Amino acid sequence: MKNIEKICINTLRFLSIDMVEKAKSGHPGAPMGMAPVAYTLWQKHLRYDSSNPGWPDRDRFVLSAGHASALLYALLHVYGYNMPVEELKKFRQLGSKTPGHPERDVESGIETTTGPLGQGFANAVGMALAEKWLAGHYNQPGHEIINHYTWVLASDGDMMEGVSSEAASLAGALALGKLICIYDDNEISIEGSTDKTFTEDVGARFSAYGWRVIGPVDGNDIEQIDTALNTAKQEKDRPVIIICKTCIGYGSPNKCGKASAHGEPLGADEAELTRNNLNWGYPPFVVPGEAASHFKKSTDRGKQAYSAWCKKYEQYKAVFPEEADQFDLALEGRLPGGWDQGMGSLLEGITKPVATREVSGVVLNEIAKNIRNLAGGSADLAPSTKTILTEKGHFGPQDYAGNNIHFGVREHSMGAVANGISLHGGIIPYTATFLIFYDYMRPPVRLAAMMGLGVVFLFTHDSIGLGEDGPTHQPVEQIMGLRLVPGLVTLRPADAAETVGAWKIAMNRRHSPTAIVLTRQKLPLIERSGQFDIDLVARGAYIVREWGLKPEIIIIATGSEVQLAISAGINLKEKGVNARVVSMPSWELFDEQEKSYRQMILPPEVKARISVEAGRTTGWQRYIGEDGLAIGVDRFGVSAPWQMAYGYLGLTVERIVDEALRLFGR
Amino acid sequence: MKNIEKICINTLRFLSIDMVEKAKSGHPGAPMGMAPVAYTLWQKHLRYDSSNPGWPDRDRFVLSAGHASALLYALLHVYGYNMPVEELKKFRQLGSKTPGHPERDVESGIETTTGPLGQGFANAVGMALAEKWLAGHYNQPGHEIINHYTWVLASDGDMMEGVSSEAASLAGALALGKLICIYDDNEISIEGSTDKTFTEDVGARFSAYGWRVIGPVDGNDIEQIDTALNTAKQEKDRPVIIICKTCIGYGSPNKCGKASAHGEPLGADEAELTRNNLNWGYPPFVVPGEAASHFKKSTDRGKQAYSAWCKKYEQYKAVFPEEADQFDLALEGRLPGGWDQGMGSLLEGITKPVATREVSGVVLNEIAKNIRNLAGGSADLAPSTKTILTEKGHFGPQDYAGNNIHFGVREHSMGAVANGISLHGGIIPYTATFLIFYDYMRPPVRLAAMMGLGVVFLFTHDSIGLGEDGPTHQPVEQIMGLRLVPGLVTLRPADAAETVGAWKIAMNRRHSPTAIVLTRQKLPLIERSGQFDIDLVARGAYIVREWGLKPEIIIIATGSEVQLAISAGINLKEKGVNARVVSMPSWELFDEQEKSYRQMILPPEVKARISVEAGRTTGWQRYIGEDGLAIGVDRFGVSAPWQMAYGYLGLTVERIVDEALRLFGR
Repeated sequence: MKNIEKICINTLRFLSIDMVEKAKSGHPGAPMGMAPVAYTLWQKHLRYDSSNPGWPDRDRFVLSAGHASALLYALLHVYGYNMPVEELKKFRQLGSKTPGHPERDVESGIETTTGPLGQGFANAVGMALAEKWLAGHYNQPGHEIINHYTWVLASDGDMMEGVSSEAASLAGALALGKLICIYDDNEISIEGSTDKTFTEDVGARFSAYGWRVIGPVDGNDIEQIDTALNTAKQEKDRPVIIICKTCIGYGSPNKCGKASAHGEPLGADEAELTRNNLNWGYPPFVVPGEAASHFKKSTDRGKQAYSAWCKKYEQYKAVFPEEADQFDLALEGRLPGGWDQGMGSLLEGITKPVATREVSGVVLNEIAKNIRNLAGGSADLAPSTKTILTEKGHFGPQDYAGNNIHFGVREHSMGAVANGISLHGGIIPYTATFLIFYDYMRPPVRLAAMMGLGVVFLFTHDSIGLGEDGPTHQPVEQIMGLRLVPGLVTLRPADAAETVGAWKIAMNRRHSPTAIVLTRQKLPLIERSGQFDIDLVARGAYIVREWGLKPEIIIIATGSEVQLAISAGINLKEKGVNARVVSMPSWELFDEQEKSYRQMILPPEVKARISVEAGRTTGWQRYIGEDGLAIGVDRFGVSAPWQMAYGYLGLTVERIVDEALRLFGR
Repeated sequence: MKNIEKICINTLRFLSIDMVEKAKSGHPGAPMGMAPVAYTLWQKHLRYDSSNPGWPDRDRFVLSAGHASALLYALLHVYGYNMPVEELKKFRQLGSKTPGHPERDVESGIETTTGPLGQGFANAVGMALAEKWLAGHYNQPGHEIINHYTWVLASDGDMMEGVSSEAASLAGALALGKLICIYDDNEISIEGSTDKTFTEDVGARFSAYGWRVIGPVDGNDIEQIDTALNTAKQEKDRPVIIICKTCIGYGSPNKCGKASAHGEPLGADEAELTRNNLNWGYPPFVVPGEAASHFKKSTDRGKQAYSAWCKKYEQYKAVFPEEADQFDLALEGRLPGGWDQGMGSLLEGITKPVATREVSGVVLNEIAKNIRNLAGGSADLAPSTKTILTEKGHFGPQDYAGNNIHFGVREHSMGAVANGISLHGGIIPYTATFLIFYDYMRPPVRLAAMMGLGVVFLFTHDSIGLGEDGPTHQPVEQIMGLRLVPGLVTLRPADAAETVGAWKIAMNRRHSPTAIVLTRQKLPLIERSGQFDIDLVARGAYIVREWGLKPEIIIIATGSEVQLAISAGINLKEKGVNARVVSMPSWELFDEQEKSYRQMILPPEVKARISVEAGRTTGWQRYIGEDGLAIGVDRFGVSAPWQMAYGYLGLTVERIVDEALRLFGR
């Protein structure tokens, strides 16, 4: 290793150490161990331009081991991103650009939010998938405007998580070449040596998935690393994993190779010993001048690459102006004008009871006619979730331009891969599974909300209305669970019309995720009191039916229970009680409305209120007040035909009527 | 194959077909394909006694592919379990013993609830682990009272789920011999051929985990199957997977090998064609007499095995009476008398602020002194979750009597393996991770609640109080999420005393799970107005401090926020307002109290109420009413030292005081 390289690597190490020491909190061990590999990648291979961080054809770099954030911030600092030393000094402090785990900030070079292990790895699979899809769609012979690598740095913890196993298997099946994982095999996890519980042969496992396996290489030998990276880049038909043997806390005389180097500062004494050990005479947070000049070579290489691409793109634009327009539109995350023109008329054809999942399938296909870059699929349930794009191909080695993605029975990675697709840009991803399996994919839904990704999460078979499959498959706590995720909008449409509205909302939400919750069972068409505009759904709640001039009782319902509420209202009218039925497809959207609208729908003076929803009642007190009654399912469901399940669990028109009369004091 | 074997296999096939046809709903394909392997296993290998389904040393049989429930019910029917033909005829109907997916019912031979894919596989790993632990503890030279196999039948879907990957890796590391997985490799999933998305080499993958791989064998050749099962049983040092090539919907002329055989009835015509094709002249639901006699050979074999074991156990009892007593106690799931004697005095030593996770660690170790069969661990966070049993060994090939289990960074399988341990019987399992990672393990927590398993789920680092690790690691919606799971009791203790109480409750809940939610940060000792008895925690909520004779305002808080509420109360007193501070460690337990107690704690006439909890406020309206105010965290957190995070997000004494005064109209 040349001396300048040593200095550069130690610059990364000591910036990381200094950040953690100053914060008195953080993870120094992984940055110290991974600095040589990170240096080699960024200095010689990674295609980026720190002056143009949003460059669509940049290589994507994902630090799946998000706890090594200090290393990422150090890299961004030395390679010219908007990451000044002041921010490094505010590591893990309130309001800094350097939080404990990386938080997506493309302008500063942070491609994705990582920390929950395995998520970044699966995000990278999604990015590599997006790259292939965009190349499949927009590249033209002699005009390769998309052709980049996706790099992911992963730890032992990433490798142990099931979500990465799922994503790796998917990446192998899809033959995602140009996806390169560098596995930091330091043999240490928090409870000590990985011998205790992680004795598997990771290379053999990835080989079984269809990956090419390189190494083990010595993670301190940058020539070995460089060779491995070059070899990996040659492999275009398979994803590649490079196994890198490193030492956690490298350089620390007393902590190298120990779990104690992982999650706490070295401490002033050990930091000093490490400085002595690695001959590092600089004060904290200093990038030596010679190192800065050397880093600049990489930054300059990046600028040239970007210029070359711009030239290439200009040529493309000249020859394929329409394609270029579409490419720009897609990458900017905008929708083409008039994309929703056909949606209103979809309802005209619907004259019989229909499940909202069915309607959703029709809408999805309609949208896909106008929006070329809508792509997604289900976790092996497409015939049930109705999510096949019938006019489109199937994504895979035979057709990288296909819009139908077969995620396999892998809900967790489906969510994380969809996040990666969205993070890459250029594609609007949707996913689908039964609502109960939201439980298998909670972490990526949360991260989509945290990152502000416009993913559309479809969840069908949304209640005990699933019927015979029984309690293991009947969601009860999941609808409310979705509502608890900050930033997520959850929509539970009551019929075909609301389903169209829900999709329209979801498509327009390009910077935050939307969950659409759909029925398995058929729902009758709702007869409404007033004029219906599908944009009423965007209000979150509206009066779907009412009797009399002033409501005496308000019944708030969602989804399949709106029809029960309406029947109850009719019945109550016969008994001389004027009810108002409010359909509330989305709590979040209703809460966003101005007070006057909210009070118009739910007048404070009407205290007699009932909520009806086939899920946990916890939370409904917010809309029905202290005197209200929440009808729902506060237990696990039952295996039975769905009508029987509804009857047995008390979700019936009779029950609503009885409770309403009781509430009303009759 | 002998004719009688063909008849027996077809009996299983047609019972399954008949169930699905009668129910007009269900999954015929897998039972038809797997009937030969199921027959061979049950007829010749499985050690069970259907007259004594609870036999501790029985082989465990797990149908991980729970959608093939009809096959399981058919097996239980023909092999003498309490599963009469009337129940088969009520397949998937309300109140039957034959729900859509198997629901744990040991008396009827159903070892675990399956359906959500991968869970059964991981349960089986837990059962095999429990077997090893019990053998390690109770077997004596010449007296092997525990020595059985754990069998699991798994599908392609099971193999794709990350939870099974995690569990398989763990089983390999722990060298769980006598765990045998039969993998139904039928190459079909719901979206069609597994080629689309599941091209990995499953055998090579399991080999990489350290499993022995047998096959592929022809799933229709019972001699090949028999040989494979015999070979698998010889392997005592590694888990074994037998890859079985089968045809989904075997016997159906038009559906064999097709996805359409998976999840819907064959239909009357195709069922008839299948009858003709397989020469099956019997009417629906008939077990031919000759088949019944043949099945009885297996049942008789089982009875003899049970008798032999009883004799063996009597001898053991005679020689090791104390061990036998402990074994009985453990298997019956009872706690030894006086197990909690030392718990009260634990508090005496605590005089300084302490994190509840620290206290929990002390309590756990105290309990482990008296309860030998308390075993568990964390998902690679033990130093942080404080869950090491310091006086006990580490479970693994070197010490199968160790009580500390290293689950690795595998939260999802940790939960499912713990469920398996509990299902096996003989061990009280606990798990631990950060509360945010509850999101990685929602499905097993739900299933523990559904099955009524006394697992103790510990979740530390329970709020934004986690501090610098930031929003990816700060739970916000998880506490309320736990409360939404029917049958789960969630406890969030406010200090050392409540932590002791929480553990006592959890240990006593042997037939339902408990989640204990603990702080990372230190909490001051609470000064209480009245006498404190740790059993007050069991009331769910109690008055922890109050001023004046009649409360003018009630502040309800949980966990780390109770101290804030108390400080606010002191402050309010100075301002002339009498507050009552209610600590509410558990919603569920409070809701269970008689009305008089609930109204004593929260008198209906006191409308001025505030809740304080560092999590989503949704749901708190239930206790604070329409006029109340919920203080919480309705957004994602921030990376900062925890005190800063609390301040920034408005969880402060000042805020509570201000809001209280506003509410009170001052």
